[in-house]
Amino acid sequence: MSEHFTVESNDGDARAATLETRRGPVRTPVFMPVGTQATVKAMTPAELESLGAQIILGNTYHLHVRPGEKLIARLGGLHRFMAWNRPILTDSGGYQVFSLAKLRKITPEGVRFQNHLDGSPTFIGPETSMEIQRDLGSDIVMLFDECPPHPCSHADADKSLDLTLAWAKRCRAWWDAQPAEGRPLVFGIVQGSSHADLREKSARALVDIGFDGYAVGGVSVGEPEPEMFAAVENSVPFLPKTHPRYAMGLGTPPQILEMIARGVDMFDCVLPTRLARNGTAFTAGGTLNLKNAPFAEDTSPIEEGCECYACQNFTRAYLRHLVKAEEILGLRLLSIHNLHFYLGLARQAREHILAGSFQEFRRRFVAGYKTRSDTP
Amino acid sequence: MSEHFTVESNDGDARAATLETRRGPVRTPVFMPVGTQATVKAMTPAELESLGAQIILGNTYHLHVRPGEKLIARLGGLHRFMAWNRPILTDSGGYQVFSLAKLRKITPEGVRFQNHLDGSPTFIGPETSMEIQRDLGSDIVMLFDECPPHPCSHADADKSLDLTLAWAKRCRAWWDAQPAEGRPLVFGIVQGSSHADLREKSARALVDIGFDGYAVGGVSVGEPEPEMFAAVENSVPFLPKTHPRYAMGLGTPPQILEMIARGVDMFDCVLPTRLARNGTAFTAGGTLNLKNAPFAEDTSPIEEGCECYACQNFTRAYLRHLVKAEEILGLRLLSIHNLHFYLGLARQAREHILAGSFQEFRRRFVAGYKTRSDTP
Repeated sequence: MSEHFTVESNDGDARAATLETRRGPVRTPVFMPVGTQATVKAMTPAELESLGAQIILGNTYHLHVRPGEKLIARLGGLHRFMAWNRPILTDSGGYQVFSLAKLRKITPEGVRFQNHLDGSPTFIGPETSMEIQRDLGSDIVMLFDECPPHPCSHADADKSLDLTLAWAKRCRAWWDAQPAEGRPLVFGIVQGSSHADLREKSARALVDIGFDGYAVGGVSVGEPEPEMFAAVENSVPFLPKTHPRYAMGLGTPPQILEMIARGVDMFDCVLPTRLARNGTAFTAGGTLNLKNAPFAEDTSPIEEGCECYACQNFTRAYLRHLVKAEEILGLRLLSIHNLHFYLGLARQAREHILAGSFQEFRRRFVAGYKTRSDTP
Repeated sequence: MSEHFTVESNDGDARAATLETRRGPVRTPVFMPVGTQATVKAMTPAELESLGAQIILGNTYHLHVRPGEKLIARLGGLHRFMAWNRPILTDSGGYQVFSLAKLRKITPEGVRFQNHLDGSPTFIGPETSMEIQRDLGSDIVMLFDECPPHPCSHADADKSLDLTLAWAKRCRAWWDAQPAEGRPLVFGIVQGSSHADLREKSARALVDIGFDGYAVGGVSVGEPEPEMFAAVENSVPFLPKTHPRYAMGLGTPPQILEMIARGVDMFDCVLPTRLARNGTAFTAGGTLNLKNAPFAEDTSPIEEGCECYACQNFTRAYLRHLVKAEEILGLRLLSIHNLHFYLGLARQAREHILAGSFQEFRRRFVAGYKTRSDTP
């Protein structure tokens, strides 16, 4: 056990645990809705709380570019700014620097780039990323890493990993120079692309440096699903059982259960809200594209038995009408349903781990879930 | 008194009353949020109820074009479709036929046109409009009228009015042939453009035919404000004090109070939700365009003392960020605030009428409200 992470129950490699943050406990496995620009898209904080969201994610890159962490700090921090009083995890900005920004120039100091909004020259390095996350008031800070593209040769991935590990040491040193009082949790990120030996090297090196938790990064970047599973399988055995594990940016509902089975505790993913804006709903049987004609007179809810506000009050026929008419209420109701689905999936996983029935739950769920060609 | 309308108090020409519909009472003066496509834009029914919305408006033209009133009827009617259990007033489609549709051909039978969505040939006449509103399950039905453009010569306005009055008789006859049991209220619409004698002619003719309430139409169609007031002043004296009066599509907050002072009971307007989507908030001092730079670090709520969810939880600085970042939560929170403002304005007007203090309330409100050049 670490002082901030208590494993309550194991079921195979899956575990139910409690992560203590400075803003209270998070019960794991946990799904963290993504609040990129200081809002989980289309949702109020009150709605998120009523759906049982324990912790949300904020994006350092986006908030740095607009409205800026200094402004947010002057206004009392990100929690107060967006009126969210539960824990917030912030990413480091690394992923967005490598996926959104233009004219990147990487040096040992960090990354110079033109931001995606107005092309202004911007710099983020390991220390800057820590400062931004400190200014935002993050409860769980991620270290600043380089995110190599997929696929990536062994030589390139190794070189990138060395830079990431050098940055990891500087992030650790930056926090060690801060007052210990009220310090957030700081998580390392395992990289190494699809190369098993580099995943092991990365994980071992991070554990040597010492972090409060460990994420697996560089997954869900376009690789086939077996490679995604392999990246986690090649990382987790080298991470301490006493610390939380976080698979970044994942995934479909079956992927999340498979990751929990492999010992992952924390997840974030834009799928529930992004697909909602595209008219797609998650169900235990797979996704439904509500634009499709067969739903035009379908008086059933999205999913029978679902207790979310959308399913308790509205038919598929009505939701289809809203989606076709591009009404905001349509994507709102689908966002509510999809977040309820994802948050509930993690909650059910936890309950089954505590009851010792997780493996059977996962097997049944994955078998019943049909992945459609039009959705992930 | 008519059997469905009870005036409780008069304050000058302003009155506080109760309108009985088949889905329960409506206390007037009342503001009716606009739910064009079977949704008040960006709002859930639960939110509308918590804001105190007593009745909403649905648009016959839009619902006829998509998803179609027959589909809505098969699914149990508009109330069930959109999960709104309080009264609904539907317009007749006339205004939209004349403002949105293309290649209009007007005959005594009705109007042939190409709808704005896919250009399909469509027909709405007085009987069709009544059938559509019946199929939707409307509680207050508006008669089908021709809406002449502004400005309109006396000769053209008179000719148009004759057609509207002929249609009014056919609408009345259509309803008289329906079973009386569970019949909705049917409202006439006074036309006549900016010509006082035609407004009188229209009002007198409609009262002769006999309706459950009377609207003033052809206002807020681009005319200067004095003409708008004149249109109402030239209509109301010829309408019975025993029946509800409704000024269609109005207006700014001061205009609504001025109309109440002239004896109008009911209002609908897209301004609160439309301006919300444009980043504009209503306050007692006038509108605020939250995109403006001075709000960037403004930690006050939209309006001090306002009890809406937006003002109770969020700063102008945060709302400005959401609006600038084009986040849906921004227009949601502004829609909540603006509807709270409009619904509250009508509620306050009612309370002041009951207390005999309406004239002073109106005078102070109108004097304190600054109309900005960038908003109506």
